[in-house]
Amino acid sequence: MYRDPVQSLEAPLLPSSATAMRPLRVGMIGIGTVGAGTFRVLARNQALIAGRAGRGIKMVVVCARSLARAMSVVGKDVALTNDPMQVATHPDVDVLVEVAGGTGPARDWVLAAIRSGKHVVTANKALLAEHGNEVFAAARQHGVAVAYEGAVAVSIPIVKALREGLTANRIEWVAGIINGTTNFILSKMRDEGVGFAEALAQAQALGYAEADPTFDIEGVDAAHKISLLAANAFGMPVRFAAAQVEGITTLQGLDVACAEQLGYRIKLLGVARRRKDGDVNGVDGVELRVQPALVPATHLLAHVNGSMNAVVVKGDAAGVTMYYGAGAGSEQTASAVIADLVDVARLDGTHAAQRVPHVGFHADAVNEDLAVLPRAAVHTRHYLRVPVHSVQQIEAVGAWLAAQHVPVAQVQLANHRQLPAGGTPQVLVLTDAVAQATVDLAVHALGAHPAVAGPVVALRVEMLEG
Amino acid sequence: MYRDPVQSLEAPLLPSSATAMRPLRVGMIGIGTVGAGTFRVLARNQALIAGRAGRGIKMVVVCARSLARAMSVVGKDVALTNDPMQVATHPDVDVLVEVAGGTGPARDWVLAAIRSGKHVVTANKALLAEHGNEVFAAARQHGVAVAYEGAVAVSIPIVKALREGLTANRIEWVAGIINGTTNFILSKMRDEGVGFAEALAQAQALGYAEADPTFDIEGVDAAHKISLLAANAFGMPVRFAAAQVEGITTLQGLDVACAEQLGYRIKLLGVARRRKDGDVNGVDGVELRVQPALVPATHLLAHVNGSMNAVVVKGDAAGVTMYYGAGAGSEQTASAVIADLVDVARLDGTHAAQRVPHVGFHADAVNEDLAVLPRAAVHTRHYLRVPVHSVQQIEAVGAWLAAQHVPVAQVQLANHRQLPAGGTPQVLVLTDAVAQATVDLAVHALGAHPAVAGPVVALRVEMLEG
Repeated sequence: MYRDPVQSLEAPLLPSSATAMRPLRVGMIGIGTVGAGTFRVLARNQALIAGRAGRGIKMVVVCARSLARAMSVVGKDVALTNDPMQVATHPDVDVLVEVAGGTGPARDWVLAAIRSGKHVVTANKALLAEHGNEVFAAARQHGVAVAYEGAVAVSIPIVKALREGLTANRIEWVAGIINGTTNFILSKMRDEGVGFAEALAQAQALGYAEADPTFDIEGVDAAHKISLLAANAFGMPVRFAAAQVEGITTLQGLDVACAEQLGYRIKLLGVARRRKDGDVNGVDGVELRVQPALVPATHLLAHVNGSMNAVVVKGDAAGVTMYYGAGAGSEQTASAVIADLVDVARLDGTHAAQRVPHVGFHADAVNEDLAVLPRAAVHTRHYLRVPVHSVQQIEAVGAWLAAQHVPVAQVQLANHRQLPAGGTPQVLVLTDAVAQATVDLAVHALGAHPAVAGPVVALRVEMLEG
Repeated sequence: MYRDPVQSLEAPLLPSSATAMRPLRVGMIGIGTVGAGTFRVLARNQALIAGRAGRGIKMVVVCARSLARAMSVVGKDVALTNDPMQVATHPDVDVLVEVAGGTGPARDWVLAAIRSGKHVVTANKALLAEHGNEVFAAARQHGVAVAYEGAVAVSIPIVKALREGLTANRIEWVAGIINGTTNFILSKMRDEGVGFAEALAQAQALGYAEADPTFDIEGVDAAHKISLLAANAFGMPVRFAAAQVEGITTLQGLDVACAEQLGYRIKLLGVARRRKDGDVNGVDGVELRVQPALVPATHLLAHVNGSMNAVVVKGDAAGVTMYYGAGAGSEQTASAVIADLVDVARLDGTHAAQRVPHVGFHADAVNEDLAVLPRAAVHTRHYLRVPVHSVQQIEAVGAWLAAQHVPVAQVQLANHRQLPAGGTPQVLVLTDAVAQATVDLAVHALGAHPAVAGPVVALRVEMLEG
């Protein structure tokens, strides 16, 4: 139902004074790194944020495990509780900020808040990767917004870019370095020539990796994020469970060095790529995957180092755009959480708070059938490293791969200085684009070949063509 | 006046079907490069855009100088006229898209549209740089939105990032490569060692520079854009007239090479930097300037080449974020124009279309007194190139500069291969941060020194500290 934009008897939307509107009242569950940062930035930039939002944003109640610790952060003017549900359903709360993490209980809190008519802002990627479709449907039903900029790439406004900045575009692919811990480790491995285990230990010592880094180093955190990006890019449900996820725990320093020799750097990439009918082999679906991949050293992504993040988006009108920023941090994540709060503050009370649909497309435009392609159908260039008994076999390797239908683009030997003295010669191969199924079969066949001196390594080469 | 978010008798905001709402009706003035791209992308991605916006976006009338040429672009279903005012005040138009360019007449059309209660989307940076404050005030008065993403950095959603994505932050500075033509020329000068005139000729031959490139190469276009970015970053009026603008027409290839020797690249930067009381010498105001400046070769900005653009923003919570994309192009600009249309479509008819204030801050929070600092007070590091009669004078140059109160950080001779055979020796100096007034006096004094063999060149070094 369309209402004409005529002057109505209602008050004008934008008040002449920012103080004329009631503040947006926030209840927060969790006062750890992100929660404390959110409280701190809201307090420090209070007047500035109100000037932008048109009204104040006020923290009214916080749920914490340790009330004493929480009080040391928020002081005496904010109510405290141990009971998350009390915040989620609190009568004085307009928006729930959920920054506690976890999935099961967080799902219950968020759904309770939605059913109480409250908007939700969360930085919880695991929650939305696993329960996003249910949460978004509930929010739509109750006419509230669920905002999650902080769940995807910390301070980088990439959800906003996809859902609002690039709305003219048919998105072709999204590829990003979206985990700070692993990018820190990979940068260390390259810069200092150390192995994975040592780089991880350094990351932990410096606070860039948690005591249990599993979700980061196994690629799960990046998979959470790329699943959310794919939903927004292509107008599809969140399909985390179908994503193919490979971490960096088995990555060898030798391959980091050999990639460098070929003019590439290895980055842990989350990739979502729309494959259309008629594209390759009549495949229709979405590649949704996380893996360590080779990126041309000339590409900007190759220069995203340390714990920084970056997301590249290819649209049919805009071409390539890139978004870069911190991949970790308390106030860095708070920046995104508060931006979501300002978005809500600018509209809450106008019946228009859910201005932008949760995955960027309205419910009837979301393609419920759009499926994630199986690993076998993923189609990229590849890097192969084939250990051989003698350097003379370099010629033969190309022939063996061709016999396995792998389109070989380039073959060379690893430089001697990459190898331990007297070590096994290594043949390096770059292929043209080929289905993963073909590569998997070829790697299997070569592994059984008597002339091959050890396990064959295959890594994807992401061309990011713009 | 706050309205409680209770369920009302009004229709729900989000229709269950995107087709349930009347399309947003667009009138467009100008069907040149950007206008034709906008029409083409709207037509090609019609269903996709409606799925995102929740309703269709329909071009109903176009104003063009040549109706025959316009019809060859838009076909027979769109009304055509020669009279811009007819589009601006057309009863069937909800939004005016102004992509004709120019200032005086465009101002009249835009103000007429606003007074007729229409929203305005424009990619016209000159218009907003010169008349933005007047246009925004009129729009505020009439309760309509004026959106201008396409006026700043083509396809890059940087206005959205500043006004919505980074609202939690006190912005410290914004620095960007925001002119594609000059970045193309500077990339050529560096990569091929050619001078400005030859690089410009190549840019013109390849269509990267217009027949009259004055606004680009003199830095005026970049100054338009940085003035708009500064308004959004700091909550100040658009102060284009006060910006200090220096182009690249006098930049010498020798300085491009010498900067390289020192580990820097020269980029035409638009910079807006908030200087606070107590910061340096009690200065309070904003540096607003465009100039060719040295950027560390290790910084991502140094790797933004060809006609690409990038904007770096430093916020107190988010830290450094960067936004990168095409700096020119028909559909690239259309991408931003249409994103603005979708923003309006998502809210027009809800009395909330002007959700985000025009410079990101509500009127009573805009600091009308925030002034642009004079050139003399700009405070940066500097690069100096001092031609001397003999290489022995390298020691003396440091002493002369110190006597002029210039804090010298580094002194070296230009490599012989940069210089013509038997050419004048060149002393290269990097300074610590220093006021422009001091540098100007020192350059003047050195120019008169009998040991100095030619004009001293001074360029700013932008540290972009993160």
